[in-house]
Amino acid sequence: MEKKYIGVGVIGLGVVAGQVSKVLCEREEFLSAQLGFPLKLKKVKVLPQDMTRPLAKSLPEGVLTTDEDDFFNTPGLDIVVEAIGGEYPAFNLLSRGLKMGKCVVTSNKEVIAKHAPELVKLAKDNNVGLRCEASVGGGIPLISPFQYDLAANHIKGIYAIINGTTNYILTRMAKEGLDFATALKQAQSLGYAEANPSNDIEGTDAVYKLAIMASINFQCVVKPEDIYREGISRLTSRDFCYADELGFNIKLLAITKPGNGQIEARVHPVFLPKDDWLAKVDGVFNAVLVEGDLVGPVLFQGQGAGALATSSAVVADVLAAAQDIHLGVGNRMRWNMDKPLGIKPMSDILTRYYLRMTVTDSPGVLALIAKVLGDHSISISSVIQKETDEKNLTAEIVIMTHPAKEAFVQQALVKLGGLDKVKEINNFVRVGI
Amino acid sequence: MEKKYIGVGVIGLGVVAGQVSKVLCEREEFLSAQLGFPLKLKKVKVLPQDMTRPLAKSLPEGVLTTDEDDFFNTPGLDIVVEAIGGEYPAFNLLSRGLKMGKCVVTSNKEVIAKHAPELVKLAKDNNVGLRCEASVGGGIPLISPFQYDLAANHIKGIYAIINGTTNYILTRMAKEGLDFATALKQAQSLGYAEANPSNDIEGTDAVYKLAIMASINFQCVVKPEDIYREGISRLTSRDFCYADELGFNIKLLAITKPGNGQIEARVHPVFLPKDDWLAKVDGVFNAVLVEGDLVGPVLFQGQGAGALATSSAVVADVLAAAQDIHLGVGNRMRWNMDKPLGIKPMSDILTRYYLRMTVTDSPGVLALIAKVLGDHSISISSVIQKETDEKNLTAEIVIMTHPAKEAFVQQALVKLGGLDKVKEINNFVRVGI
Repeated sequence: MEKKYIGVGVIGLGVVAGQVSKVLCEREEFLSAQLGFPLKLKKVKVLPQDMTRPLAKSLPEGVLTTDEDDFFNTPGLDIVVEAIGGEYPAFNLLSRGLKMGKCVVTSNKEVIAKHAPELVKLAKDNNVGLRCEASVGGGIPLISPFQYDLAANHIKGIYAIINGTTNYILTRMAKEGLDFATALKQAQSLGYAEANPSNDIEGTDAVYKLAIMASINFQCVVKPEDIYREGISRLTSRDFCYADELGFNIKLLAITKPGNGQIEARVHPVFLPKDDWLAKVDGVFNAVLVEGDLVGPVLFQGQGAGALATSSAVVADVLAAAQDIHLGVGNRMRWNMDKPLGIKPMSDILTRYYLRMTVTDSPGVLALIAKVLGDHSISISSVIQKETDEKNLTAEIVIMTHPAKEAFVQQALVKLGGLDKVKEINNFVRVGI
Repeated sequence: MEKKYIGVGVIGLGVVAGQVSKVLCEREEFLSAQLGFPLKLKKVKVLPQDMTRPLAKSLPEGVLTTDEDDFFNTPGLDIVVEAIGGEYPAFNLLSRGLKMGKCVVTSNKEVIAKHAPELVKLAKDNNVGLRCEASVGGGIPLISPFQYDLAANHIKGIYAIINGTTNYILTRMAKEGLDFATALKQAQSLGYAEANPSNDIEGTDAVYKLAIMASINFQCVVKPEDIYREGISRLTSRDFCYADELGFNIKLLAITKPGNGQIEARVHPVFLPKDDWLAKVDGVFNAVLVEGDLVGPVLFQGQGAGALATSSAVVADVLAAAQDIHLGVGNRMRWNMDKPLGIKPMSDILTRYYLRMTVTDSPGVLALIAKVLGDHSISISSVIQKETDEKNLTAEIVIMTHPAKEAFVQQALVKLGGLDKVKEINNFVRVGI
């Protein structure tokens, strides 16, 4: 006998999970009409303290439970949505769902970034779907295009503004000349940054998302801890002034590209020419630029966070899972991790660099610096020496290099920092993608 | 016994079809590895004159045929790719494939725009897939996100730069002050515009793509001939000067949005504020902005044409079709056309307008014009009167209106055109989305 409906269970009642339950209830008819069969919210697993929340009270009677066994044993539960975030207990809950043969949908970047190999294997072994569209870029379609729509391509690179908080802060610094601390406070007061913002501003959030994107596109295991990570807190308003003068915007990018049996995977600020697509993406938005060898550059841009946008992706995954179940399809993921690609050490990266340093305002200092760079095979593309502090007898020098090897640049910076005439290496930012 | 491979047939050996056959041959191993089973190019249907082309000679022996029956009766042919373009014989070929129970993939916007209802019905009746990702926006994922990834949303509007030729011409006019004819010639010499460019510059190409996007998103029948269409050939360098001065770029947009049991569907030039995402899209690229009530704005941007980019979408469709066949899935399209939504008459559209006219340089003329507009319930937002031609005693007046009803504006323009003091209505462009 054919099943009369597809049943969905949601774990959590937080910002995202609550919104997902709300959409599933309020749009039951709309969603079911698209599928051609009924889709029903059957159960919501909450914490005891959630029971009194207004949203809890607005859900249909009998839907709420605080008991995990009760939740998983709900009759007619086909799809489990996990939207509680964090590594544990999310990993155990997802694993339990998959082992029970349920389709699983998650918006949780951390658990996917850290446990994709185990979870994908569990999904394949149990022939059920595992979907995580909302784990990267909120509501922007990314995971699905990567797995399906761009599958004919050899991917040449992914360049992503994948954290809205940092892009908001960088935009305010660029447009209004704010310093980092003021821009961060602005972001916090608008709800774009958390009280403890370190996950965002230090790039950890972006690392998780990059690990997922790199793993899907290059079909290999990518561990978050192997990804180079540098946040935005070292950027100052002076760097933005020079960037502007030189024709660049500064963005925090997550970058991954293949080459020579390895992949690059790194998160750090980048000077981008103002005409680049990603340089034009302002405010709290995310944008992911994918370069395929057939399709060329494709940009996906939108809201990378927020309950509504994220629920859009989660519910789309629920619809896809429901349709597969209805069609008798188990697992049809195209996410293999069997390519033995290691991550290229950061020291081997080749890129251009922006260097800013404070030097004593005395003859021969530029020649000295140029010699150190030359000794490290670093060729100078342009130099600005403009601000002289007459009181302290110091000047500021900004150097743009031609492409150079990261290891050599780091060695040169150590050497430069040790020179008497170099008072301070103020900053160092990679240039271009 | 399980089938040993999924077989593909391609109709045509033109720019797109030839590239598709090439990718299917050259990447057989790469594509098969993604699917987990072999995918094979079995047959290519060509015209007799194609047989001597270099590409024809490079294809595996026995693959080419000039005979339609021979093509369709090829043993092991599961998927038919049509990439010859145009309404006929494409419609008959697609119909024949569907009736024979074959999955069908097409890059042909015209046949889908004109025959979606029949073709979708045939696909559903025969329980086979019909895929047309490449028919809109070349390699940019659009059809698939519309059907699946954004399915939880009520779509509030789609705003698309969906023709690369016209966007290239408009970009050159904006950036270099070229007139239309010169920019068109430049586009032709670069291969971005055809010798007979009317399908592009008059908006016909954009109308086909809009019909497809509107039909999928609003689940209704949208006939291309019901879509309002206005091309770019009336735009002059003076309009671009004023646009720039007023803070706008000019783009040819395909627009569709729902409201009051109808949908708007129209293609025409639009003044866009320079900060709008679409206003920043320069050159030969396409960009589609979708507004969902959950996801908010999402932008998809990339190459909307070209053999390589288009083959990316076609081969992705072939992969999806192959995976479905392998999984025993017939039709899983989410493209219903059962909503009885008519297209809102253009006269009912409400938007802002830019009006440019040449008047006699005499007292009271602005008052006269303002009165005519006021009499038609059109409120003025700003006026520029700046260029005076002292020899001809004429001046140029540019008016930006507040939102007004198209019908009233058209009536007012007729009235204004009849005034002695108005020498010419030079142009008229809608403003904003």
